[in-house]
Amino acid sequence: MQDFVFQNRTKIIFGRDKEEVVGQESVIYGKKLLLHYGGGSIKASGLYDRVINSLQEQDIEIIELGGVLPNPRVSLVHEGISLCKEHNIGFILAVGGGSVIDSAKAIAAGAKYDGDVWDFFTGNASVSDSLPIGVVLTIPAAGSETSEGTVITNEDGLYKRAMGHPTLRPQFAILNPVLTYTLPSYQTACGITDMMAHLLERYFTRERNVELTDRLCEATLKTVINNAHTVLEEPTNYDARAEIMWAGTNAHSDLFGTGRIGDWASHDIEHEISGIYDIAHGAGLAIVFPAWMKYVYKHDVNRFVQFANRVWDVEIDLYNPEKTALAGIKKFEQFLHSIGMPITLNEVEIGDEHFDEMAKKATERWPLGNFVKLHENDVRHIFDLAR
Amino acid sequence: MQDFVFQNRTKIIFGRDKEEVVGQESVIYGKKLLLHYGGGSIKASGLYDRVINSLQEQDIEIIELGGVLPNPRVSLVHEGISLCKEHNIGFILAVGGGSVIDSAKAIAAGAKYDGDVWDFFTGNASVSDSLPIGVVLTIPAAGSETSEGTVITNEDGLYKRAMGHPTLRPQFAILNPVLTYTLPSYQTACGITDMMAHLLERYFTRERNVELTDRLCEATLKTVINNAHTVLEEPTNYDARAEIMWAGTNAHSDLFGTGRIGDWASHDIEHEISGIYDIAHGAGLAIVFPAWMKYVYKHDVNRFVQFANRVWDVEIDLYNPEKTALAGIKKFEQFLHSIGMPITLNEVEIGDEHFDEMAKKATERWPLGNFVKLHENDVRHIFDLAR
Repeated sequence: MQDFVFQNRTKIIFGRDKEEVVGQESVIYGKKLLLHYGGGSIKASGLYDRVINSLQEQDIEIIELGGVLPNPRVSLVHEGISLCKEHNIGFILAVGGGSVIDSAKAIAAGAKYDGDVWDFFTGNASVSDSLPIGVVLTIPAAGSETSEGTVITNEDGLYKRAMGHPTLRPQFAILNPVLTYTLPSYQTACGITDMMAHLLERYFTRERNVELTDRLCEATLKTVINNAHTVLEEPTNYDARAEIMWAGTNAHSDLFGTGRIGDWASHDIEHEISGIYDIAHGAGLAIVFPAWMKYVYKHDVNRFVQFANRVWDVEIDLYNPEKTALAGIKKFEQFLHSIGMPITLNEVEIGDEHFDEMAKKATERWPLGNFVKLHENDVRHIFDLAR
Repeated sequence: MQDFVFQNRTKIIFGRDKEEVVGQESVIYGKKLLLHYGGGSIKASGLYDRVINSLQEQDIEIIELGGVLPNPRVSLVHEGISLCKEHNIGFILAVGGGSVIDSAKAIAAGAKYDGDVWDFFTGNASVSDSLPIGVVLTIPAAGSETSEGTVITNEDGLYKRAMGHPTLRPQFAILNPVLTYTLPSYQTACGITDMMAHLLERYFTRERNVELTDRLCEATLKTVINNAHTVLEEPTNYDARAEIMWAGTNAHSDLFGTGRIGDWASHDIEHEISGIYDIAHGAGLAIVFPAWMKYVYKHDVNRFVQFANRVWDVEIDLYNPEKTALAGIKKFEQFLHSIGMPITLNEVEIGDEHFDEMAKKATERWPLGNFVKLHENDVRHIFDLAR
């Protein structure tokens, strides 16, 4: 087990109607905030009105910035930073899913910085302080509601880059499973894939003696798998929606990554695809992760055998562990297909025209991953396996 | 799943030699602290000197209060409160196990209160503020290093009572598995029993649809079980000590209790025994918990079947679930015996002379537990089953 420091201060407020306390929780951070959100869905659902009411009950002045897109753009982040500086805003409330939260985090960091916020994403500067953030979560997927990370796309060159800092963990996250009832099936399935990917990035480590966190990852994966079809078939099943929502947060809070060195190559590779093609992050992960598994499993077959056995209930063939490992990967692919995810680039009509460019961009700063270090040629092979 | 609010702010600093940063972490809370500890073991091991050095490097003024006993007493808590008030102390550093941390928490609450700190334990007053606390943990067991609870014994009547408040969660907890190498086997086994009991108190709930937290509890129980014999047979096995230490903290951080209503009757019953007889809390739990299980399992056989199957790998006999349930309880008893714990009152030479008195005292405020509500007569029966 690796040494570690872990701290997750985010206050989780979980249950029905909990968005009604957003005013009380927000006013702790001042009487003026930036309300950040995406498109029209929160207005159509009535959530927007309930949030506004709760904030107004606390006499909070609201500056609004909607319009966050999936794969959130740095241009809107710049706009948010200007608003915060201009209006002297001390708190950002993100109402939405991972894209809205990630955009809010970038604004929060940029509002306390004199240079260009993109410096944080290129590694040219480090966050030292940021505005506090609160979250009303509408999509269980990214886990950004308690994580310290954010992923932003720069339209200039279509770079999608991640950065993180402890101050970026939200102060509170309101999780009401009822708010997820209206999520379309495809988005629900993308979210399920994303949270599974967060667990798998941590799970596939070369670190030995990480039994507790292995088992916690497996426990969460099994819960997600067991509830996935229920939420797709019965979108208003509170209990199943609640399991998925709470699993999604825990999948990325990083408690289950303590003492381990995660991989994250699949995320980095996927960022190249969704940076160029603007497909849903979850769908991109459903395509990349199985291909990554097929490319790397021989480097530690035992870990893939454990995955097959403990997560997918594949019996271990002691005389042919490789067969067991491959059966686990197959089960994962079948599961992704069963929830409506693509598992090849062909299915989303992405051809090989940018494979070279994406492989080059993905590895231009350093090799990807930790389970196996991947260079440009390796990533190119993974794209081929994902066709 | 029940609605919940969950927040655990404690910063975990985990790994070899981490006690060396205690000065840096403490000085954040001021230049003067109360150093609280137990007997001579931290002096014998050299830990005391290392902590003092680290504090002195930050020019921190140290007021000392040692002498915390197992089942910590309110008299020493009063002494600590007086010291804090007299010296205007703003921070308490607890170096030790659960007893030292619990004592520090009671001092922290009492130092901000004008009345008698025991009021908090009788329910006559509620904590509203407390001094910040830091921890260097030496015994993985109580989970007090990140919990909001404390248990104190009042020598006047031998009452052992619990209370809790969010401000009592320590600011930081330093967890170095190496510090646990010198724990005697019996104390190691008591700690293992205590952390298992914390998981089981949460696990045995009547709440339905708590799959994620069920599985997280099971994952942690399996990890503790798998590493228990290793730490007893190889006390200096870092990896196994690390698994047990991190499991012990997570067992009581309350993340795994979210959305559930725990039971806690076994803890309350045990408090009566260790309040009078001063046996180790873990040993008392090893005696009480199996007796409690035998008394209550028929109220929800399925939950005990799941426990037997998922935690102890007992195959489910669908035609006789009760047999499966009882096999799980038996496995638990056998495990406790195998690590050197008593599982009957006879083994620790406790007779029935105080059964009536203890059953009365345990239930004098309200019935115990939630899985089944236990009244005086029920508790009396559980003592009989524990003979």
